[in-house]
Amino acid sequence: MSADDELSRSLPAVDAWWRAANYLSVAQIYLMGDPLLRESLRPESIKPRLLGHWGTSPALSLVYAHLNRIIVEKGVPTVYVCGPGHGGPAMVANAWLDGTYSELFPEITPDEAGLRRLVRQFSFPGGIPSHAAPETPGSINEGGELGYSLMHAYGAALDNPGLVVACVIGDGEAETGPLATSWWGNAFLDPRTDGAVLPILNLNGYKIANPTILSRIPEEQLVEFFRGHGYEPILVSGGFDGDDPMLVHRSLAQALDDAYDRICRIWTSARDAETLADRTDERPPMIVLRTPKGWTGPAEVDGHAVAGTFHAHQVPLSGVRDNPEHLAQLEGWLRSYRPEDLFEADGSPAAILDPLRPVGGLRMSASPHTNGGTVEPLVLPDIAPHAVDVDPDGDGARTERAGATGVLGGWLRDVVVANPTTFRVFGPDEVASNRLQAVFEETDRAWQLPTVATDEHLATDGRVIEALSEHLMQGMLEGYLLTGRHGLITTYEAFVHIVDSMFNQHAKWLESAAHIPWRKPVPSLTYLLSSHVWRQDHNGFSHQDPGFLNVVVNKQADVVRVYLPTDANTLLVTMEHVFQTENRVNVVVAGKQEQPAWLSLDEARAHVDAGLGRWDWAGTEVDGEEPDVVLACAGDVPTLETVAAAQLLRQRVPDLRIRVVNVSDLMKLQDPEQHPHGLPDEDFDALFTRGKPVIFAFHGYPTLVHQLAYRRTNHGNIHVRGFVEKGTTTTPFDMVHLNDLDRYRLALDVLHRVPGLESKPGIRKLADEWHQVRTDARVYAYEHGEDPPWITDWRLER
Amino acid sequence: MSADDELSRSLPAVDAWWRAANYLSVAQIYLMGDPLLRESLRPESIKPRLLGHWGTSPALSLVYAHLNRIIVEKGVPTVYVCGPGHGGPAMVANAWLDGTYSELFPEITPDEAGLRRLVRQFSFPGGIPSHAAPETPGSINEGGELGYSLMHAYGAALDNPGLVVACVIGDGEAETGPLATSWWGNAFLDPRTDGAVLPILNLNGYKIANPTILSRIPEEQLVEFFRGHGYEPILVSGGFDGDDPMLVHRSLAQALDDAYDRICRIWTSARDAETLADRTDERPPMIVLRTPKGWTGPAEVDGHAVAGTFHAHQVPLSGVRDNPEHLAQLEGWLRSYRPEDLFEADGSPAAILDPLRPVGGLRMSASPHTNGGTVEPLVLPDIAPHAVDVDPDGDGARTERAGATGVLGGWLRDVVVANPTTFRVFGPDEVASNRLQAVFEETDRAWQLPTVATDEHLATDGRVIEALSEHLMQGMLEGYLLTGRHGLITTYEAFVHIVDSMFNQHAKWLESAAHIPWRKPVPSLTYLLSSHVWRQDHNGFSHQDPGFLNVVVNKQADVVRVYLPTDANTLLVTMEHVFQTENRVNVVVAGKQEQPAWLSLDEARAHVDAGLGRWDWAGTEVDGEEPDVVLACAGDVPTLETVAAAQLLRQRVPDLRIRVVNVSDLMKLQDPEQHPHGLPDEDFDALFTRGKPVIFAFHGYPTLVHQLAYRRTNHGNIHVRGFVEKGTTTTPFDMVHLNDLDRYRLALDVLHRVPGLESKPGIRKLADEWHQVRTDARVYAYEHGEDPPWITDWRLER
Repeated sequence: MSADDELSRSLPAVDAWWRAANYLSVAQIYLMGDPLLRESLRPESIKPRLLGHWGTSPALSLVYAHLNRIIVEKGVPTVYVCGPGHGGPAMVANAWLDGTYSELFPEITPDEAGLRRLVRQFSFPGGIPSHAAPETPGSINEGGELGYSLMHAYGAALDNPGLVVACVIGDGEAETGPLATSWWGNAFLDPRTDGAVLPILNLNGYKIANPTILSRIPEEQLVEFFRGHGYEPILVSGGFDGDDPMLVHRSLAQALDDAYDRICRIWTSARDAETLADRTDERPPMIVLRTPKGWTGPAEVDGHAVAGTFHAHQVPLSGVRDNPEHLAQLEGWLRSYRPEDLFEADGSPAAILDPLRPVGGLRMSASPHTNGGTVEPLVLPDIAPHAVDVDPDGDGARTERAGATGVLGGWLRDVVVANPTTFRVFGPDEVASNRLQAVFEETDRAWQLPTVATDEHLATDGRVIEALSEHLMQGMLEGYLLTGRHGLITTYEAFVHIVDSMFNQHAKWLESAAHIPWRKPVPSLTYLLSSHVWRQDHNGFSHQDPGFLNVVVNKQADVVRVYLPTDANTLLVTMEHVFQTENRVNVVVAGKQEQPAWLSLDEARAHVDAGLGRWDWAGTEVDGEEPDVVLACAGDVPTLETVAAAQLLRQRVPDLRIRVVNVSDLMKLQDPEQHPHGLPDEDFDALFTRGKPVIFAFHGYPTLVHQLAYRRTNHGNIHVRGFVEKGTTTTPFDMVHLNDLDRYRLALDVLHRVPGLESKPGIRKLADEWHQVRTDARVYAYEHGEDPPWITDWRLER
Repeated sequence: MSADDELSRSLPAVDAWWRAANYLSVAQIYLMGDPLLRESLRPESIKPRLLGHWGTSPALSLVYAHLNRIIVEKGVPTVYVCGPGHGGPAMVANAWLDGTYSELFPEITPDEAGLRRLVRQFSFPGGIPSHAAPETPGSINEGGELGYSLMHAYGAALDNPGLVVACVIGDGEAETGPLATSWWGNAFLDPRTDGAVLPILNLNGYKIANPTILSRIPEEQLVEFFRGHGYEPILVSGGFDGDDPMLVHRSLAQALDDAYDRICRIWTSARDAETLADRTDERPPMIVLRTPKGWTGPAEVDGHAVAGTFHAHQVPLSGVRDNPEHLAQLEGWLRSYRPEDLFEADGSPAAILDPLRPVGGLRMSASPHTNGGTVEPLVLPDIAPHAVDVDPDGDGARTERAGATGVLGGWLRDVVVANPTTFRVFGPDEVASNRLQAVFEETDRAWQLPTVATDEHLATDGRVIEALSEHLMQGMLEGYLLTGRHGLITTYEAFVHIVDSMFNQHAKWLESAAHIPWRKPVPSLTYLLSSHVWRQDHNGFSHQDPGFLNVVVNKQADVVRVYLPTDANTLLVTMEHVFQTENRVNVVVAGKQEQPAWLSLDEARAHVDAGLGRWDWAGTEVDGEEPDVVLACAGDVPTLETVAAAQLLRQRVPDLRIRVVNVSDLMKLQDPEQHPHGLPDEDFDALFTRGKPVIFAFHGYPTLVHQLAYRRTNHGNIHVRGFVEKGTTTTPFDMVHLNDLDRYRLALDVLHRVPGLESKPGIRKLADEWHQVRTDARVYAYEHGEDPPWITDWRLER
């Protein structure tokens, strides 16, 4: 039988599937009873609040039906990423037709009773959302915010060499910045070791109220656009002005056949090739599918055009309960899909759909890649060989120095080696800048474009991915994690704000997914933020912003963790921990510059395990006595200034009982009712006292400490120093000086705040002296261009 | 004289300018003495910390020199937007050669003494940053975060019909999402009424440590890429392998001639055309300039290739003070520009450069568009005709209802009409969705692409700009504001997080600019956030996030303002106010749904003026007596719930003295030491009492109130209800119920927290009753799909 004949035979079933999914999409938006239209539609069967969106659904189901045909025929595992917003009804409808929905939600049976629950729950109190959300089987992309579908798809395809990730992109979504740069995901996918992404751009012409740009440029320009991005576009168009849908079916089926064949040729060529030059230079395919918005919906409502216009975006027929004409039109619309041919008498999907239903995990709604079903355990090499040798048993001085992220880089290299196909490092051109370059001793950056002699560390199958887009890097990592693999993203602290909203959406995804029993836990999303606010010597004010932590702590406590490891060993221990967590977002802030290495590995383990603790070697505490003052600190630079301030005080005000407390797990500050890591009140009181002054040197904005600790007994005495939005291109010490976080300022704070201290003999003079040396440091820096030796040569003494 | 001859005559001067700028760029990075190399270079003339970046500078100066030639020849006013990061040295060098730098910074004289200060201040404590920052004359784009140059350029070109905005884009920057979608700015610029943007993509091949994508795709593909975006690319390439720079000069000069000629033809055609069809269909030009990274710098250092590789990104020669070989190499590099030909004996720029220096404001560094010099006053029509008629003098009931943003839309329409060339509305396809559609009664959306019959409100010269990119909309608005015009951006509250980082950068720009005397104030950036967290009936969890306020309050208090107008009239008054402000970021959060209109216009004026105040008509206060409890609220939905809770309490516990306080200016909560709007402590104490329970119903995350008010006397008694990250697609009342912000919960909070109240007769029973009716509301909603009538029909009674 010719390919053409085969198509002719299979397309009626594809059309039936499409009609069934469309029918169920409309039913979900409108109905709360009689889902199979056994009787004439009655007002009471209509939801009182019509909250769905219709416009995008028909094209989503069209692609779904056609992908089913391909999967059944070719047996190629395929993930469906649904980009457009409000695609929920279509994706749910298809998952129900697949049988997956009833398997995962046993109360939504594959019969009329199940259908009644299915249609009612959509956009209904206690029900399911309108997007392809965590609640949607087979989804790894919410579709709510728009813009992340294609990067999720590219992340999912990495290290899945047999997988096709079909990604339907809305033409509204395509206007977002993140999506616009995602087309370049093809520069990173190695056809030898990775799967393929098949972008399917649905040009339905309109967004909420505006036309879309890509739908209005001339077709010749559209082709140039995609060829310019390195794709071979395949154009499918139809459904306008009453086109026979069968023509579109045929054209789309051929396009998908072409695309899958092309993908297989590219795979085969890359896998058979001995050298890069032997690989085919065929471009990867993408499909442009131009169909009317809300296709198959009402052409006109109350005399106004709807299908094919932006009026089809939401609910085409409104006021249906009270408007008999609209009610009749809705009934006609629903019946136009001929439900009697699509469902058996008991309401189950008609037998004609059976040949289009792939088996088991080949159903896109049941793909094991999409619900955490394929999580590979991460092999974690020993951190001990990488630890900095800190010997606190000698004379008490701790004078070792190390760059924390540089040390971590050595271990990350081992992690990469130990997990050759399940761990990746992502960064916006900052992996080396953040001093993780040791990974390049064992791997390279993935790169499929031409190379030249002056390039370094590029290879088609490198385990590091870098493009200068925080969006693309985070999105690919999310796609990689949501399909069960492991990794981290490293970026400059200030610029992680670029992906604030992506963080929000991913945290919300995890918050929702945690309540869905069939979604297995996925590896956590871990940020390593370096090149932080305090060390922007090169970059200045635009690069100084520690406010990501403020964004993070707003999300549900079950999901978010914030770590401020203060030296190399605490960073190693922290990273070893966070890589073992699931369903969380871990934010780790660590410096890349050489800094004191305070803690031995054992000490670091105990400290990170506790999350915070006394550093008796830095203070002057007498066991069993309450200190006069607590110097608390979180973050590497504030810790250095705090330890130095304690030393100043120790040496000059030896009677003062100083407690130094370092916080490495920020959420310890919060009440245990508010966060699972929260320190119990009695422990907090024991550590921070119930009434002594606390000078808290904090990495970020000072009010964050107040926000977290406002319920604590001693909160009224906590005086926080942190970043107060002062800074520029200057020396490291001048930065802490500008923001009043320097050692002299902290020591002066102690003099001012410990009751009675200022009136003691010599203290006024000491304060003057510290003011002077602080000023001298600035004068020196502004004259010489670097910090004075009494700052740069400072070491902890005992 | 032929054009070719003319070029031959002018190019030596262009080359000299370029060499002078390069010389000064290198000098800024390295030198702190002897800027003209009067002697052999000595170690002490080298900065101790070498913090600059060289890689991008030569191409920036090349373009600058060539644009000077064009401006002098053609007299077309041109703004230079410098996209690449670390372009500061080049832009400063050119501004000094222009003469502008010495005019604006009188201590940086146009002579050797000035040069000494000029080179020393760069990336030096107390000096200037390495980016094209606010400190850089002629800059409207920081270049620090990367990605916003082209959108700033498009914003600057709007309504400046004679202006060319030349925008140099780095090939690293071009990988960011925001830049990737900015190419579509050409869909909005009307050649009849707007200026032109001339993008100049500099392909220098490398980012920090990676090659760039656009530099590695085949040239044919690159051409398709730009044609696909609707441009006519003009390719200029050279400088590799010792190419004669004069060849590049000739080629770039011709490219710029072509581009300007093309722009003028497009302008003329559009302005002469009677109909759209008469306009030329010539595409706007863009230039691809391929030059080596760090061109003219050291080809090799210590045997490793530098120029043309990513090793040229930062400081090509390190350790210069201590490494005599590097010192010698630096001297050779500097002398290679032949400074003796470029500076007069006194250190002023050589006469050969004079013909390339445009006069006055035609100098790009002195363009009046770029430093607030062209701010047009905004004409503000009367808000009174738009006010909702609220009559509080009747029986005391306030039962008017209105959608706040819908009412505002009517006034915005008048603002658009009153400011036909200086005010614009930007939105990511949400202007109508946020109910501002009244503006379309008088204007349209700007749109240069083909239209079809089903489009609505599109025109080439519309005053509203919409693309589905929060980035592009905010960036174009920033460009519009920074060049002295007015506008606002309206977006969904949750998705404003997409531009968190752009907000940060703009706020930092304003913070820095405020200290630069020659930068005139610019109109404020105003966000109207609607479709907020509490009314996501259609969209659910992914659209619920009020955390932008947390990001905003971290920035310097002089710059940020947050308003939560609670009804239509307070919104009108608030917007009238914010449009009159300068150098600020105003965040206004307002609902679009129908809500009670509580305040008459006069009341609203007084309330907004105060920023917060007692609503005696809602409480049960007796003048002169302290209330038993304060019910505070901020935001429209929390206010409704608070007023309803007060009514419950009024009717059922009539002896209770309740004070209702509404906060419309959030920063009133903060200490006046921390924010200029902060309420003095004595006033705060008078309003919130010094010891009574305060139940605060807040629009956003509850901890934000604690963060702002933690210093207040009565802070320990403030109990905040707000969004606690619970929500989904459900009814409006169920949303407040889910987050414990509903009227019953607030009333129950009062019962629990007013000392002794719970033990009074009947109170326990009342509490049970309220618990029950709260539960009943949910049961009703989950059964009927809508809120019960006792919620939807609720009205304030007295």
